Amino acid sequence: MRVYDLIWKKREGGELTAAEIAFLISGFVNGEIPDYQMSAWCMAVFFRGMTFEECAALTLAMADSGEKIDLTEIPGIKVDKHSTGGVGDKTSLVLLPLVAAAGVPVAKMSGRGLGHTGGTIDKLESIPGFRTELDRDQFLKQVSRIGIALMGQTKTLVPADKKLYALRDLTATVESIPLIAASIVSKKLAAGADAVVLDVKYGDGALMRDYGDALKLARTMVEIGNRTGRRFKAILSNMDQPLGMAIGNSLEVAEAIATLKGEGPSDLTELCMTLGGLMVFLAGICETPEAGKGIIWKILTSGAGLAKFKELIEAQGGNPGVLEDPGMLPTAPVVERIAAPRSGWIERLECRALGLAAMELGAGRTLLDDVIRPEVGLKIHAKVGAYVEKGAILVEIHARSADDAGKVIPRVLNCFRFSEEPVKEPILINESL
Amino acid sequence: MRVYDLIWKKREGGELTAAEIAFLISGFVNGEIPDYQMSAWCMAVFFRGMTFEECAALTLAMADSGEKIDLTEIPGIKVDKHSTGGVGDKTSLVLLPLVAAAGVPVAKMSGRGLGHTGGTIDKLESIPGFRTELDRDQFLKQVSRIGIALMGQTKTLVPADKKLYALRDLTATVESIPLIAASIVSKKLAAGADAVVLDVKYGDGALMRDYGDALKLARTMVEIGNRTGRRFKAILSNMDQPLGMAIGNSLEVAEAIATLKGEGPSDLTELCMTLGGLMVFLAGICETPEAGKGIIWKILTSGAGLAKFKELIEAQGGNPGVLEDPGMLPTAPVVERIAAPRSGWIERLECRALGLAAMELGAGRTLLDDVIRPEVGLKIHAKVGAYVEKGAILVEIHARSADDAGKVIPRVLNCFRFSEEPVKEPILINESL
Repeated sequence: MRVYDLIWKKREGGELTAAEIAFLISGFVNGEIPDYQMSAWCMAVFFRGMTFEECAALTLAMADSGEKIDLTEIPGIKVDKHSTGGVGDKTSLVLLPLVAAAGVPVAKMSGRGLGHTGGTIDKLESIPGFRTELDRDQFLKQVSRIGIALMGQTKTLVPADKKLYALRDLTATVESIPLIAASIVSKKLAAGADAVVLDVKYGDGALMRDYGDALKLARTMVEIGNRTGRRFKAILSNMDQPLGMAIGNSLEVAEAIATLKGEGPSDLTELCMTLGGLMVFLAGICETPEAGKGIIWKILTSGAGLAKFKELIEAQGGNPGVLEDPGMLPTAPVVERIAAPRSGWIERLECRALGLAAMELGAGRTLLDDVIRPEVGLKIHAKVGAYVEKGAILVEIHARSADDAGKVIPRVLNCFRFSEEPVKEPILINESL
Repeated sequence: MRVYDLIWKKREGGELTAAEIAFLISGFVNGEIPDYQMSAWCMAVFFRGMTFEECAALTLAMADSGEKIDLTEIPGIKVDKHSTGGVGDKTSLVLLPLVAAAGVPVAKMSGRGLGHTGGTIDKLESIPGFRTELDRDQFLKQVSRIGIALMGQTKTLVPADKKLYALRDLTATVESIPLIAASIVSKKLAAGADAVVLDVKYGDGALMRDYGDALKLARTMVEIGNRTGRRFKAILSNMDQPLGMAIGNSLEVAEAIATLKGEGPSDLTELCMTLGGLMVFLAGICETPEAGKGIIWKILTSGAGLAKFKELIEAQGGNPGVLEDPGMLPTAPVVERIAAPRSGWIERLECRALGLAAMELGAGRTLLDDVIRPEVGLKIHAKVGAYVEKGAILVEIHARSADDAGKVIPRVLNCFRFSEEPVKEPILINESL
């Protein structure tokens, strides 16, 4: 087998066999296949696409490239969740304690934020004392003991994806649906779950801005996930405006806590109900996702989710006092409250630009080793469809200095587009696969 | 300027500016742009193509990447010639002395053979004593003195092409018309000619098997060549069967000598008349290519072309005795004469396969540093359209041993396809641009 022939075959629109794909991935990971051949192949895939068969083979080859987490010693159906990333997406912080409280074992590895989107691990680390680096033994024991553990992705998980992603990121080959699908699903397989619920976001603040692309990605991931013998489900949710009102790590943790108390924003709450319903359904706890939603709702209103979050924080060394007093989370020294420059209905929120503004304040990373500032971010007071009076507070800027805040004010203000006419609230969840 | 953005732009079908292309080529040549980005860009070019503007910019950037030959001290219009390569293509050996004898200064750099196609430099080196490594001074002085000099390409000419071609060859990005066009034309520009005649071959034994692709390549080269301020003309010639009867270095030199004596195969003679006519026309010696053809014909029949070839051989240290006695060229110890297995008209000759069989005998290279055997090759006795009696000689195999010859016999025989019905001779020259 020659790499040249495999590049050529894909370039000409041919279908690679599973053996050919495995040869490419293992050769690339062990350094026998040079980057310049792999990047040419990725570009050919960008143009030619992949069949579900090829994409499933790629996913399995990547999942097999490193360590795989064995969760079989934990009884029950392990259900994982993945979001393609968005602005203000603190869903996992709310959802996972709810699901764990429903009796679904949660053994979850999460990522860090990059660019305009945040990451669950960064958010958890804004809780004083919270440790996200567990070893495998601690991780599994904690799941057995309290039903939930969250940790950062280990370096040995899916090395093929790390190496391939780094190359794609430099060669303009990121935006390929089969390559994105294989990247996500391979990590889910290696992380050991029996079933996975995917939250595929679309719109301005999402990886996939276009709804059609997001739908294609969701369908591809569900199809290839199911071909590997696991159960995959997906929803498509709107990311044309931030999820909830808070963007930035401490602010999002506080919002997650409020949501677990039943006092959260309606969009975040709704998303957690839908995803949670799917997760308990896949775990075999109920007959339909709708019934699962009812279970999650009961857990939320009973306070059992909040109690489970408390257990999680305590188990991982965090200070559970933040649940009673979110003021114990890191707080920004400067909070600038920006007033609405006019009256009207909010017609649009520039979601990606808001995410980038929060990143510039220090809430996110441009490069993988940038340091996150947990205390900074944005708190929106009005979302699409809301009516705002001139002079009312539109948004708070939580910054490390007045100077930092001042720099982003014009851009943040510019993210709010007003209308003279009433505007409908956007639909949050558009499709369920 | 970021390489990433340039890959992305081309991937999305955008048009790069001349400055962007120059940035890519100079960065690649000086090692600042890694191979993996360049190969991804080449694959994007494969799919998206290039405008003439982009292709001309690429050609100029490549021509500027290394040494450029300055021919201005040689008076007159310097006309170069390039063939895209074929099987049995000894045209330059006949054509260039004819053109030089017509008073057009010939200062030509030629390449070596690779794969199933041969190279002029290898052919000349089968003449005992002939030196093809001249320094620039010797080269120019010889052109001034006798009107003709031929040498191998210097290593410092168009380093961008050398580096880029090596990368394309490993990443399945060779077959891109704008990249091929820029590669060829950049070398012609750097070699200093004022005008260039291109012999673009199509068919089984050519780089471009498809006529439409060859036409596109020819049009692209003429267009970008003319945009650089030189004059370019092209013809399209058939390579569905070898040119002439001889394949292999000594055998081809002998055939070239016969042709200069007016005793050569008709297809080779016709091609030299047409190309020569274009060259003397471009040199300003006559009003039309047709008139040029007449001039070249007179030179051939007068023996002036043969006399010029003798001068060339003497000037570069070769033994001119080969002109009188081609037996002084290296001769194979074994000559197997293969008889026709049946009677009939030759319907088809597998041209590429014949080239590869000659290469296996030692007439060509698989890798750039393989050693050529000048004495081996094939001599065809019947081409497409000819009637052959069963038992008549079809082809001679000139080999280093009976064993070598035996190995290729079945494959060589298999290259001749017979018909019960008369077959028309193919048209050699299909188009002139």
